[in-house]
Amino acid sequence: MEILELLTERKFGALKPLVASMNATDLAGVFEQIENETDLPVLFRILPKDLAAETFVEMDGDLKEKLLGALNDKELRAVMDELFLDDTVDIIEEMPASVVKRMLAQSDAETRAYINEILKYPKDSAGSIMTIEFVALRKAMTVDEAFERIRKTAIDKETIYTCYVTDDKNKLLGLVSAKDLMLAQKTATIGEIITENVIYAYTEDDKEDVARKISDYGFLALPIVDREMRLVGIVTVDDAMDVLQEENTEDIAKMAAVTPTDKPYLKTSVWRICINRLPWLLILLVSSTFSGLIISANEATLNMPVYGIVLTACMPMLMGTGGNAGSQASAMIIRGIALKEVSFSDLWRVVWKEIRVSVLLGAILSAACFLKVLFVDKLYAVQNGTLVALVISLSMLCTIFFAKLIGAILPLLAKKLKLDPAVVASPFITTIVDVLSLTIYCAFAVAILGSL
Amino acid sequence: MEILELLTERKFGALKPLVASMNATDLAGVFEQIENETDLPVLFRILPKDLAAETFVEMDGDLKEKLLGALNDKELRAVMDELFLDDTVDIIEEMPASVVKRMLAQSDAETRAYINEILKYPKDSAGSIMTIEFVALRKAMTVDEAFERIRKTAIDKETIYTCYVTDDKNKLLGLVSAKDLMLAQKTATIGEIITENVIYAYTEDDKEDVARKISDYGFLALPIVDREMRLVGIVTVDDAMDVLQEENTEDIAKMAAVTPTDKPYLKTSVWRICINRLPWLLILLVSSTFSGLIISANEATLNMPVYGIVLTACMPMLMGTGGNAGSQASAMIIRGIALKEVSFSDLWRVVWKEIRVSVLLGAILSAACFLKVLFVDKLYAVQNGTLVALVISLSMLCTIFFAKLIGAILPLLAKKLKLDPAVVASPFITTIVDVLSLTIYCAFAVAILGSL
Repeated sequence: MEILELLTERKFGALKPLVASMNATDLAGVFEQIENETDLPVLFRILPKDLAAETFVEMDGDLKEKLLGALNDKELRAVMDELFLDDTVDIIEEMPASVVKRMLAQSDAETRAYINEILKYPKDSAGSIMTIEFVALRKAMTVDEAFERIRKTAIDKETIYTCYVTDDKNKLLGLVSAKDLMLAQKTATIGEIITENVIYAYTEDDKEDVARKISDYGFLALPIVDREMRLVGIVTVDDAMDVLQEENTEDIAKMAAVTPTDKPYLKTSVWRICINRLPWLLILLVSSTFSGLIISANEATLNMPVYGIVLTACMPMLMGTGGNAGSQASAMIIRGIALKEVSFSDLWRVVWKEIRVSVLLGAILSAACFLKVLFVDKLYAVQNGTLVALVISLSMLCTIFFAKLIGAILPLLAKKLKLDPAVVASPFITTIVDVLSLTIYCAFAVAILGSL
Repeated sequence: MEILELLTERKFGALKPLVASMNATDLAGVFEQIENETDLPVLFRILPKDLAAETFVEMDGDLKEKLLGALNDKELRAVMDELFLDDTVDIIEEMPASVVKRMLAQSDAETRAYINEILKYPKDSAGSIMTIEFVALRKAMTVDEAFERIRKTAIDKETIYTCYVTDDKNKLLGLVSAKDLMLAQKTATIGEIITENVIYAYTEDDKEDVARKISDYGFLALPIVDREMRLVGIVTVDDAMDVLQEENTEDIAKMAAVTPTDKPYLKTSVWRICINRLPWLLILLVSSTFSGLIISANEATLNMPVYGIVLTACMPMLMGTGGNAGSQASAMIIRGIALKEVSFSDLWRVVWKEIRVSVLLGAILSAACFLKVLFVDKLYAVQNGTLVALVISLSMLCTIFFAKLIGAILPLLAKKLKLDPAVVASPFITTIVDVLSLTIYCAFAVAILGSL
């Protein structure tokens, strides 16, 4: 890559305009590729101040730490001055204590106070992701004055495209978009063009709910207020997108029985991956032994010499189909809950829907299964083979029925109990359904074949 | 709800200012709750024109269709005039042919030409989700002239916060943000404040890639160009968020072996749900019979009278743990691929990582398993019980090893073959690992116990 070559050859004259024209995200990518650690601060110092800060924000945690270690106090202070406050908080939450100490020492009293304020909000709250760098206007201002205000303060604001109107007690009265301002008469007052019916969230609201609100309404930012309706910050659309992506990643991890991390796969250590996966595997391993107990208890039935190993050989098919049928339902319901399309109050609608789906699917699959064991596995040629086929296909029908119901009900129940629905996904459903399908299977086998 | 009451009582005087102060998303929610279909157009007609169109966009498909059916041609034309063009295209794609015909008849020639143009782009391309309603500026314009231009055209534009600079052949030269404009001298030219190094995408690029670019860079919009670098449209951040949410929902559906739909769960018919789930269940059912074949083939070993049903009873535990171990790896890799954190070129890094993870996890789980069958299931009291425990725990170790490798490699392979990685998630991995674990299990049983 051209930049890396110029850097190694220390051709700063050519390097400077080249990097200055790039954007922060791509530059962070360049920093990732620098192999010689001492080159990191060299390239960083070449960047214009604001671009340097933006690039710093885009780097991953390890790289940030390395770079911070290489900067002297004055340089660190320069970076801290350029950072948006919400980014500063994110970085502080990410860095080890020693680095945080140095960062705080290099920031001014106001920033420190703000950081402490934000850090007080619970980890997943709107307060923890908001920024206080918004434009506040007053009703009495004219449009011209508002523009003047924006021009004076715009550099330090996360967004100037949505301005919030507050009274002298900081109470949120409404908003004015930059578009409204541009289209209005210059002499009009903010009070005349204000949109008063404004959607907001509270500092303690869940950050995912806030992000989804921004997404649903198509906002560029959402104002965050305290219980007295005082405007304390805003959450911007780019942060909302990040939150939603993170939540999706977490949900997918949980649905596969993995403890979520916020690091990309390739950057997560082998040790950390093991710790994230081990407890779930152990829990599921222990619970899967119940299936073994059922098999042991039904030794006599499963080993009936007349039917040989047929009954045992069909177990994986039954357990597998049951698990898959349950996972399908649970995944759909979990996603529906996450998107707020389904809630506990829909329980009966969901149950009724899954009953119909499972009867239909169960009928088709058990018919397919009946024909398959009868003709493909040639049970028709065995004594009482049709009865064995009946046991298998009846078990299939019942397994699918209960698997779908369990798969649909458990996530809703988890949500109601304020647990994370994503946890009762595929692996747990499968384990529960395994036990269930074996129980049903053995019961049918005893009932139909036991008396022969 | 107050609005619904006022509507039933036909108190339009009170209703009008109330609904006019609401936003489109919430209003669409109100329409959803109207039970009497003839009330739909009544409420719709009360809304200010632009709000009516915005609200219409936020409604779900069924409601849109009902409402369109109730509007006369003149009203329909009024709605069509107010709609953003990209929304019009979305609606057209959603509606049945008869409704589309009416809609096209009520739109002007220019709109029809545009709709036809957009409909030509492939379903998942950037072209299919872009809008042509952006602000284009010229280099020679002054900031003041640019403002004038924005003011004149802003009403019809999706966003005025990022303006694009083109030459007289429509070639994309760069961009100017509304912030740049506000902070610049009024007499400065666009050429002086332009950002030339602009990130763009091509019309045929995948819409998910475009959405992720907008998210990664934190843009409000991304310009879309043709192969000659002519600016043909933009994709805005709100559409990008929708695309990402849809893609996540689709991925989760595929990972649970369900064909994705774009309708919410509760709005999807029982019949449709069955069709989305059935083929996958059938495929998995058929493939799970391979497990049965392996069991049948090893009848002699599994039924060895000395060990009774012990070997069979451990099968669910082995298959279950293998399936879970594989699903964990595949889910992480699938998500990594979706987020562009992992690609096929990382294959060896991934394999090496999973080898270490699986050896570590396998060692711990197989040790736990060894102790469990020996002491909890009391195999130590059985003749050759330690050997049986050895068979089980060795199988566990190997199963986890191969399950993790398969789980990690298959999604990457699928991506390389231009298939969707999400399809080779949990259910497929589980089915494959079932066969594998039984094969390993029976092989160890024959090797270690067969000669006794």
